[in-house]
Amino acid sequence: MDKGDKKPSWKERIHEVIYEADTKEGKLFDVILLIAILASVLLVMLESVKSFDEKYHDFLNISEWIITILFSFEYVLRVISIKKPFKYIFSFYGIIDLLSTLPKYLSFFIVGSHHLAALRALRLLRVFRILKLSRYVGASNKLLIALRASRAKIAVFLFFVIIVCIILGTIMYMIEGEENGYKDIPTSVYWAIVTLTTVGFGDIAPQTALGQLIASAIMILGYGIIAIPTGIVSSEMTKTTSEIDTNTQSCKSCLKDNHKENAEFCYNCGSKL
Amino acid sequence: MDKGDKKPSWKERIHEVIYEADTKEGKLFDVILLIAILASVLLVMLESVKSFDEKYHDFLNISEWIITILFSFEYVLRVISIKKPFKYIFSFYGIIDLLSTLPKYLSFFIVGSHHLAALRALRLLRVFRILKLSRYVGASNKLLIALRASRAKIAVFLFFVIIVCIILGTIMYMIEGEENGYKDIPTSVYWAIVTLTTVGFGDIAPQTALGQLIASAIMILGYGIIAIPTGIVSSEMTKTTSEIDTNTQSCKSCLKDNHKENAEFCYNCGSKL
Amino acid sequence: MDKGDKKPSWKERIHEVIYEADTKEGKLFDVILLIAILASVLLVMLESVKSFDEKYHDFLNISEWIITILFSFEYVLRVISIKKPFKYIFSFYGIIDLLSTLPKYLSFFIVGSHHLAALRALRLLRVFRILKLSRYVGASNKLLIALRASRAKIAVFLFFVIIVCIILGTIMYMIEGEENGYKDIPTSVYWAIVTLTTVGFGDIAPQTALGQLIASAIMILGYGIIAIPTGIVSSEMTKTTSEIDTNTQSCKSCLKDNHKENAEFCYNCGSKL
Amino acid sequence: MDKGDKKPSWKERIHEVIYEADTKEGKLFDVILLIAILASVLLVMLESVKSFDEKYHDFLNISEWIITILFSFEYVLRVISIKKPFKYIFSFYGIIDLLSTLPKYLSFFIVGSHHLAALRALRLLRVFRILKLSRYVGASNKLLIALRASRAKIAVFLFFVIIVCIILGTIMYMIEGEENGYKDIPTSVYWAIVTLTTVGFGDIAPQTALGQLIASAIMILGYGIIAIPTGIVSSEMTKTTSEIDTNTQSCKSCLKDNHKENAEFCYNCGSKL
Repeated sequence: MDKGDKKPSWKERIHEVIYEADTKEGKLFDVILLIAILASVLLVMLESVKSFDEKYHDFLNISEWIITILFSFEYVLRVISIKKPFKYIFSFYGIIDLLSTLPKYLSFFIVGSHHLAALRALRLLRVFRILKLSRYVGASNKLLIALRASRAKIAVFLFFVIIVCIILGTIMYMIEGEENGYKDIPTSVYWAIVTLTTVGFGDIAPQTALGQLIASAIMILGYGIIAIPTGIVSSEMTKTTSEIDTNTQSCKSCLKDNHKENAEFCYNCGSKL
Repeated sequence: MDKGDKKPSWKERIHEVIYEADTKEGKLFDVILLIAILASVLLVMLESVKSFDEKYHDFLNISEWIITILFSFEYVLRVISIKKPFKYIFSFYGIIDLLSTLPKYLSFFIVGSHHLAALRALRLLRVFRILKLSRYVGASNKLLIALRASRAKIAVFLFFVIIVCIILGTIMYMIEGEENGYKDIPTSVYWAIVTLTTVGFGDIAPQTALGQLIASAIMILGYGIIAIPTGIVSSEMTKTTSEIDTNTQSCKSCLKDNHKENAEFCYNCGSKL
Repeated sequence: MDKGDKKPSWKERIHEVIYEADTKEGKLFDVILLIAILASVLLVMLESVKSFDEKYHDFLNISEWIITILFSFEYVLRVISIKKPFKYIFSFYGIIDLLSTLPKYLSFFIVGSHHLAALRALRLLRVFRILKLSRYVGASNKLLIALRASRAKIAVFLFFVIIVCIILGTIMYMIEGEENGYKDIPTSVYWAIVTLTTVGFGDIAPQTALGQLIASAIMILGYGIIAIPTGIVSSEMTKTTSEIDTNTQSCKSCLKDNHKENAEFCYNCGSKL
Repeated sequence: MDKGDKKPSWKERIHEVIYEADTKEGKLFDVILLIAILASVLLVMLESVKSFDEKYHDFLNISEWIITILFSFEYVLRVISIKKPFKYIFSFYGIIDLLSTLPKYLSFFIVGSHHLAALRALRLLRVFRILKLSRYVGASNKLLIALRASRAKIAVFLFFVIIVCIILGTIMYMIEGEENGYKDIPTSVYWAIVTLTTVGFGDIAPQTALGQLIASAIMILGYGIIAIPTGIVSSEMTKTTSEIDTNTQSCKSCLKDNHKENAEFCYNCGSKL
């Protein structure tokens, strides 16, 4: 932030603390937020454990209120300290920030219907606060670059996997039938996915000899084609890594970059680098 | 399609709509076909769910007839608009197109035997319509090239996996025996495949100490050799990818090759390529 | 085989048929052997299926005798047609060939004790005939080269996996105890292997919260470290593949080979290639 | 060890035997230690098997005492023969060495409370002796280098996996609820980890149609993202391998680098390196 000569306004100072991590206060803010997010997710999880909730209901409730107020405060500060508040409010993180704060307030207003399933579901939304953690992972990550580059290929692969599962599921439904647990095609397709992905719950398993033969084929197929997404990502990452071997120097005459590390001349215009 | 000066005949126009996706009508036809295929597969799946079929039997039946007539119409158009109709009829897609349309008509003629298992199986053939989707995936796909190149190696690998499973299955049958669920060698081989591919249904599991020791060995083996197909595809894809990025042109002055695709000058001596 | 001018002896002719696949007779012999092996393995498997064995006992018995005599004949021919018979007899294939032929004859001599478990096990040895198939896979296979090259690394990896499983199994035995199925340390180690290799039978599963936490850690660890053998084999295969990019041309002055495909000068002595 | 002219002291001689493997005595010591470690771990495991412990209690007890005394002796020798004993005592191996020797002595002093669970746990610590084996694996291993290099990326990946599992676990808890085994959020998150890592115990499995749909999505996701750690390690190992084979020396006349390790002349211009 280029502060120039002027003394920064209080809005600018808040912006610096919240959105940047260069200053002491910014780092402290980040650490507190991190702890609050983790504590919050832990609270949601513990609240769902009956025996724990009965014992420590008040403690859980108060802690939740403290964290909710803290996050509300953070939300308000984020909105007022930014120049384009609506851009933040309707951004991915803005919506997550709001969604994860609201449920606790709603539980305050709708006291009578405290046990409604819809409200319970709403309250669990607080678990999404964990997504706020992803702010701390650089978006320019090499991992994400490789994944983004292989997106199309992986989509084609998953598309084939789903087609294969639908056909194999239907065949297994014909062979095994309802008496062996394959009660309808969607269930059989679910079983085919469980098998092909090598998860294998075992809640449904083929009983007939022919069913076991086809199941074996599905498993070997699944064992074989797991190589495909791996191959895609591996080759993409090897490429990304080797691109790092090209340097960032750009040619003085034609401004092309991406030269080989040991290139002596520009591959585009032939002038000496 | 080079239409020249002549006005295209109605056959040519149908061909353009069905087999090409360049024109507005062609794209619209593709989108409608796509929706029809997905709707059709969804119908087959829902039809198998008893509770759903009882409630909405008429709706499912009518929808199915509409889609069947649509596909029949498409089939007829494909046959009459192509120059060599028999080549299409006996092609992979031609057979799929016919097979997925016929069952509904057969159910109309054989009303009495409506509940025959054979007919039910026949009706499920309609799920193969999903294979028509593969028309939309380019055959020149890099993924498929890499797979085709590694076909022989993967076959050798699968061949070894099957040999290993037959031997291990037989050994487990000797050790565990019928009282622990390994009722015959085919079942034991099935179990060996379930274990080696890390699926692990758990419907059959070793009970004796020796059986568990061998099962552990199988699992670690399976965990280790999953690396093999992955290694094959990875190295093949890395090769395919790097081959595409460099051309085979060699520099006229220094004879170096492996230049970048868009290089205009040799990266080594600076002379024009 | 360099037959020169002399007419080959009958031993030489048998050797040619059995050990080589260049002549018509050699190919025919190979195809018959292949079918006999597969039929033999199928017979062993079907024999173990009770319902099938009861129905077709005589058919199975006679077929087995035919195949056994065929293999015995092959064994004798192999021994007499080779120059160093003992080298063959004590080789891997020699032992397999003998072991897979003997059991049927033994069943003939020890008629009274037909149902001894030891004999049953012995008879199942016939399944090892499937190993004879590996004769048809070239030993100079790239796949095997890559595997052999990464043998040491994979051994280190498996060694770590086993250490980790022993420690984690012991910890789980302490936490879950006998009441939750972890009845002793070997069983717990078996469970740790089942979990780490992502097989997951589910015959034993953690019940306590702490046990589930540690199980989660084991699973994520297993999910992560499966990357290691894959990485080893992938990098080895990529290397093997890229070594193919080095040509087999050897330098005229220093006889070094393994030059880069596009090398102009020997990397060892500097003379023009 | 440069022994020079002086006769080495007895401390130096012990140091040579224990810490080095160059001499005959050093190798013998290593082999004995290796056998003792393996025997010790086997004893801990067998002791936990009830039926075995009852039969051979005395044998197990005496063997354990022999090994404990052997390890105590080794520990003392290691401490007195090293120049900085405290550095060893507080090192990783020093602590392991002590921890794995103490429990047996403690069982001697606290005779009355022989069956305390805490003591049983303590006694199982002896299994950690297996970690002493890792002394035999070179720390400069290529495998470890590749792993260390990809540590950060794998941490980011595991971080995402855990976030995804927490969110998916919460969603499954909402959909399936307590009646289908998803009794609280921690259990549901445990299930999500079991499913995403393709372990699939099957102790908990979705029963509702919507739950099975989401489970299918989780499984396909898990099947797809297993490619990520693999891709990371593969590309890292490929890099490590290729870096080792080429040196960083560049040709004096043409400035090309990336020469083969054993190259004596530039592969490009033929001048001596």
